[in-house]
Amino acid sequence: MILSIIKVGGNVIDFPEKLEEFLYLFSKFPGKKILVHGGGVMASKFGESMGVMPEMVDGRRITDKDTLDIVTMVYAGLINKQIVAKLQSLKQNALGMTGADGNLIRSVKRPVKTIDYGFVGDIQEINIELVQTLLENNLVPVICAITHDQKGQLLNTNADSIASELATSLSKKYKVNLYFCFNKSGVLIDEKNEQSIVPLINEDIYTELKKENVIHSGMIPKLDNAFAALHKGVNHVWIGKAENLLLAAKGKLSGTTIEKHRYDLY
Amino acid sequence: MILSIIKVGGNVIDFPEKLEEFLYLFSKFPGKKILVHGGGVMASKFGESMGVMPEMVDGRRITDKDTLDIVTMVYAGLINKQIVAKLQSLKQNALGMTGADGNLIRSVKRPVKTIDYGFVGDIQEINIELVQTLLENNLVPVICAITHDQKGQLLNTNADSIASELATSLSKKYKVNLYFCFNKSGVLIDEKNEQSIVPLINEDIYTELKKENVIHSGMIPKLDNAFAALHKGVNHVWIGKAENLLLAAKGKLSGTTIEKHRYDLY
Repeated sequence: MILSIIKVGGNVIDFPEKLEEFLYLFSKFPGKKILVHGGGVMASKFGESMGVMPEMVDGRRITDKDTLDIVTMVYAGLINKQIVAKLQSLKQNALGMTGADGNLIRSVKRPVKTIDYGFVGDIQEINIELVQTLLENNLVPVICAITHDQKGQLLNTNADSIASELATSLSKKYKVNLYFCFNKSGVLIDEKNEQSIVPLINEDIYTELKKENVIHSGMIPKLDNAFAALHKGVNHVWIGKAENLLLAAKGKLSGTTIEKHRYDLY
Repeated sequence: MILSIIKVGGNVIDFPEKLEEFLYLFSKFPGKKILVHGGGVMASKFGESMGVMPEMVDGRRITDKDTLDIVTMVYAGLINKQIVAKLQSLKQNALGMTGADGNLIRSVKRPVKTIDYGFVGDIQEINIELVQTLLENNLVPVICAITHDQKGQLLNTNADSIASELATSLSKKYKVNLYFCFNKSGVLIDEKNEQSIVPLINEDIYTELKKENVIHSGMIPKLDNAFAALHKGVNHVWIGKAENLLLAAKGKLSGTTIEKHRYDLY
């Protein structure tokens, strides 16, 4: 059975109209599905209004106790529940969750090496049986970027990592397609031209595009993660704009699809 | 099968040590169970730190848009997830929920008569099948005082009402016992003496105690609600202190048990 895991980021969540449009598209997305969401700038905004300033070390955000509380309130409270209520109005039986709920995602507090990231979790284990139970009961899990260590501590966790780990773990039970909705139309030949999408990337093409410097900087870890997911059993990974999600579902050219094998083998 | 629905209020939630003790007792509570929690003063405290002052009309709190956002953050985010993480560490497979999640509790925005309460919900329907599915899978629902109207709107909802409505609806499928943990040891003969607990109240005793003015003011709606629940099929209702919850579970004298029939009939 096909399972689609769709991750949506801050560039959609921060804008009520974009979020509404996205949730409508998500509701029309066929088959079993899971939504994973981050938080966007809302957490920083609320934090600042409460006098909690984001702490940065070497350009990296640190999750101290106050920041964890705010992130928990904004991600698991405000954003997650507004998404769930909206999806319910669209006849989707959405169930909002953190990784603590039903022990969905157990993580470990990131060990301190050069930087102490604070209450940040690295994922250890996904509760596959719970996801199966929910999906079998036609529930649509809506998962925010908080996990726990099963010892009582909540942990701030990267939403992209949650989506990837869910996808790879659930590949044992489903044919999993992973969709990353972000702020560009896909991998672009020319960064300034949103039409210049590379429709399909496999490992040969990836090697070539890196050599030609078409793919560089921030896009490399994204694609490395995508290939890592494919190697762990995920069927395909898509990256593109949220508004093109349904085109992607219908297999139409709309963003960049990442596949493990050469496509000329098909 | 026996199902215990346990409601805990702000007088426990506001104090980390009390909450920790309560959650330990809850984890030891035998059988199928559901936890319902309110929010305490934390929501007002956070609201004030963000410049949102509680709006009161005739001594009643009004839930405007900003207050709803704060309540959603604090109840569904911070408190609910801290409780879930703690219960997970106590080997309870807790799953935190609002009434929007899985369409658990559908409510309707309270109609405006003399007072416009704002985004406050009156409960219409409980999703019994969902609760059964969760309990059958050994999950422990942890439900906060937020519901939805199934049209996309979250609504602030009284936690006592959520506990009572869950209890009456689930009485169709389970033998339901309802526990209200509050700040007194039970119904007291002498308000100043915490030892003077009335151990058992049925309708005859209730009529008598009201006549003698032992039960008055704030206790009357509490007991009226309890009897209403009993008339709708709930097995028994208990009110008492959180720290006596396990004594209550063991049938030991610890608070006030409210039963429909004369106890001398048993």
